[in-house]
Amino acid sequence: MEALDKRISEQGDLVRSLKASKADKAQIAAEVETLKALKAEREDLNPKDNLISTTAPKSTAPKNDDKKAKSSFTLKNAKGTKDYTPQEMAVREKIFSTIISVFKKHGGITIDTPVFELKEILAGKYGEDSKLIYDLQDQGGEMCSLRYDLTVPFARFLAMNGKEYQNIKRYHIAKVYRRDQPAMTKGRMREFYQCDFDIAGTYDPMIPDSEVLRILTECLTALDLGDFTIKINHRKILDGIFEVCGVPEDKIRTISSAVDKLDKLPWADVRKEMTEDKGLDPKAADLIGEYVQLKGGEELLERLYNDAKLGANARAKEGLDDMTLLFKYLNVFNVTRYTSFDLSLARGLDYYTGLIYEAVLEGSAPPTLANGEKARATVREGTDELDENTVGVGSISAGGRYDNLVGMFSGVNKKGQPNLVIPCVGVSIGVERVFSILMQKQKKEQIKSNETEVYVVGLGGVSVEERMKICTELWDAGIKAEFAYKLKPRTQNQWDACDRDMIPFAVIVGGEEIEKGLIKIKDMRAKDETQKGGIEYPRTEMVSELKKRLAEL
Amino acid sequence: MEALDKRISEQGDLVRSLKASKADKAQIAAEVETLKALKAEREDLNPKDNLISTTAPKSTAPKNDDKKAKSSFTLKNAKGTKDYTPQEMAVREKIFSTIISVFKKHGGITIDTPVFELKEILAGKYGEDSKLIYDLQDQGGEMCSLRYDLTVPFARFLAMNGKEYQNIKRYHIAKVYRRDQPAMTKGRMREFYQCDFDIAGTYDPMIPDSEVLRILTECLTALDLGDFTIKINHRKILDGIFEVCGVPEDKIRTISSAVDKLDKLPWADVRKEMTEDKGLDPKAADLIGEYVQLKGGEELLERLYNDAKLGANARAKEGLDDMTLLFKYLNVFNVTRYTSFDLSLARGLDYYTGLIYEAVLEGSAPPTLANGEKARATVREGTDELDENTVGVGSISAGGRYDNLVGMFSGVNKKGQPNLVIPCVGVSIGVERVFSILMQKQKKEQIKSNETEVYVVGLGGVSVEERMKICTELWDAGIKAEFAYKLKPRTQNQWDACDRDMIPFAVIVGGEEIEKGLIKIKDMRAKDETQKGGIEYPRTEMVSELKKRLAEL
Repeated sequence: MEALDKRISEQGDLVRSLKASKADKAQIAAEVETLKALKAEREDLNPKDNLISTTAPKSTAPKNDDKKAKSSFTLKNAKGTKDYTPQEMAVREKIFSTIISVFKKHGGITIDTPVFELKEILAGKYGEDSKLIYDLQDQGGEMCSLRYDLTVPFARFLAMNGKEYQNIKRYHIAKVYRRDQPAMTKGRMREFYQCDFDIAGTYDPMIPDSEVLRILTECLTALDLGDFTIKINHRKILDGIFEVCGVPEDKIRTISSAVDKLDKLPWADVRKEMTEDKGLDPKAADLIGEYVQLKGGEELLERLYNDAKLGANARAKEGLDDMTLLFKYLNVFNVTRYTSFDLSLARGLDYYTGLIYEAVLEGSAPPTLANGEKARATVREGTDELDENTVGVGSISAGGRYDNLVGMFSGVNKKGQPNLVIPCVGVSIGVERVFSILMQKQKKEQIKSNETEVYVVGLGGVSVEERMKICTELWDAGIKAEFAYKLKPRTQNQWDACDRDMIPFAVIVGGEEIEKGLIKIKDMRAKDETQKGGIEYPRTEMVSELKKRLAEL
Repeated sequence: MEALDKRISEQGDLVRSLKASKADKAQIAAEVETLKALKAEREDLNPKDNLISTTAPKSTAPKNDDKKAKSSFTLKNAKGTKDYTPQEMAVREKIFSTIISVFKKHGGITIDTPVFELKEILAGKYGEDSKLIYDLQDQGGEMCSLRYDLTVPFARFLAMNGKEYQNIKRYHIAKVYRRDQPAMTKGRMREFYQCDFDIAGTYDPMIPDSEVLRILTECLTALDLGDFTIKINHRKILDGIFEVCGVPEDKIRTISSAVDKLDKLPWADVRKEMTEDKGLDPKAADLIGEYVQLKGGEELLERLYNDAKLGANARAKEGLDDMTLLFKYLNVFNVTRYTSFDLSLARGLDYYTGLIYEAVLEGSAPPTLANGEKARATVREGTDELDENTVGVGSISAGGRYDNLVGMFSGVNKKGQPNLVIPCVGVSIGVERVFSILMQKQKKEQIKSNETEVYVVGLGGVSVEERMKICTELWDAGIKAEFAYKLKPRTQNQWDACDRDMIPFAVIVGGEEIEKGLIKIKDMRAKDETQKGGIEYPRTEMVSELKKRLAEL
């Protein structure tokens, strides 16, 4: 709690200093959001009575009541989860369909895996983040956990079905679960969607890798999120750097994760973490610093090949050869301009073996303080990991090549080698962040969550059966239609329903017209006075007239 | 285990007797499936070593390995869960989109709720089935459970957001979880989809109820599952029957659940359960028998109104008035012909308060034995409930009116009345059964799981970059295209890829043609000899020609 108070106080200082230095408004807004999120966390830990505390009404309590059920409880969602309203769902479904149509354009097919896996399937895959895995209670039977991502279940699927799916371009959009400290206002939830595309199979180098980057650029462009940069790097180049700089083999992963913070912390801080916290020889750290602060484009390859030490390192050479090929293909795919070859990109996950990448939205760079330094990111409580959600960096997508994960599930032969190797490369798009960004762009009232095309309005005491009959005709014709569920609805309430749900057309039925076989069609979007009462049609022409008008929408 | 052996033996007898009596083939097949399912259950309880037992390869084990992780584990899905392959997903998505388009035609909008809820939200809602709820492990924090259905979370959503959503037509298609004994071959899983449509709001009687039945008929018709019947009944009529027959108030629910088995058991067995197991006066049971074996159409109403005892019962009268109104509206909606007014329908769930219904597929009636009796259904182990999955009855959908569920979450006022009442009526479509039926109808190989329109085939040593360039042009034009991820793919492998994925068109690029600015388009479905090598086009016309051809598909 005290640590949290301290963070809140620091964040408050940051916001004030940004405001004082007249920093970019978006930056300030982002930091204010962070401050709100921190305060919400404190609220979470120490809730006030702002929730509905409720007592089950006795009159409606079922007879077979669970004996242990409390008679009084707090009506809320489980921590870190939320409901999505129809308006929010409309935006989410738009995002999903946009992304899926790109995936399908590239031959993507989808699979589904269960929300929970055997606990041992997830064990040993997520390093220190394993503590965030949700376990199911032991109710007799197997020990299970909720999935933490979609990649490990995919690898398990391939290991089990490898004969049939040696080659697959699969996408999967589904919920995953992490017992993290939620920051609802920042969109960090315990239940959230991941959106993954992966290409599995043994192919010639860098061809699928480059198509994954093409797919990513198509998705981010189609989502219309503004400019973005895809940082790319290669694990083998990084390993080569660490090798030539004298990092002991057993320190490579931990030094690598320190490097990964360079987008949020100044080099001096990263160097301190390497030497003081992780016990690296300061000389080695300084050597690393010379390499990992490099970034640029294809031209950087030449420099690294020509580097006396790195150019002679076998691992680095492999990585550089891959990158050479990658740039050749990215040029053909017209996506080089979106990329930045960035030697500080390291990615946290253990299982990457080759190319790695991370897409960042422009306009969400780390905030710069009044003194010209980069803002300090907060560190995830109880760990030395940077909390990406508390910095301004808008990492919107990430991925890379992981050639050994399937083998971890396939069992080993007598030589200790995996029985089945299926190399994979994939990308995960941060759809929850995309959702937050797109929700901020539009007003909730302006989101049409239904698809209703026609509202059947009854005037002058027309019966509900008449309105039902009209609706039946419309439904039979495939037209999306609604009517008021009242025997005698008020006229104004019917117009209000059209307006509230943004329904484009009304069919108006009145007592006299019905007898004459007439209805009126009114364009609800037209301000035109002649349209005010609608235009009369024979009822037999209602469907064809509406279909004509709907086709013109 | 012995009980299971006995069931397997009995089921074996049943199958043999059906075969001996030359019963309907579909019936026999259904019973053979049940037998397989029972054997699979026994297998489950006593597994043989037919699963891949695997040892994690040391070479690829991550460094931060979980200390507790076993080095050897069984590679499988958690019990009662399965993966869905791309072909299966294509069928599932077709089902979902068919249903969703009907829901949207009636103004349906969707919400999403979390996979887990606070444990107390689910407590006391499911009677004795509560034991099937999955709990999350207590890892510090709130006690949570996986949702058991979508109705209770919807009621919780309404209680929390009732001000904004007093009136809503919401659909929700999502996974729910039950720790039931799985019978995978019958499609009974521990993780499965529910597909719900509910209308919430205070309206005039039976108007939304009749639209829900119209929606159900539209869905079942669109899914093309063959003939079906929607059994309808009313809780108040049933309660009236029990009242006039002298069932004590505290026995009404348990007697009601005995009645609900009448579609699977002969009356004599149901009567025995009422009198011997549930201690009902045999006279009362006989009186009940006279009513609950009645079924028919609208004309049955007249008979019940005129019944000396029932016609005078206030509760029954309310139910009969509702049914009168319902039939009037069902006639307008043209769906009466799909319904059967069936006094034996009682539905298990506690929360129904009015109209109830259940749709049954024709051709899946309970099997009739050689001696003319209905086949005996098996009873769910450790309970007195009939296991619906072990009988031939194809209940494909069910639902009803539940006016008090939201109030159970809303808290009570000083008088002990709920603070918020939102009456609801809804239906749940058994999409997993629909899926089983539709999967059986088609061959797996004939399901196209991708949407790829064009495969770019390289001939005569054309470079991968040339094929990439063609693909880029196609993608830029919105055409779904793939190419081989090899530098020098074998020609036959490229044709095979087209055939395997049922891709309609190939664009063929050869070394010489490229230089001349030409490509060939080949219709992969045409057997026409002139098509064999494809038709030549200037490369500049490739996109427009393909678009023209794709539009004609």
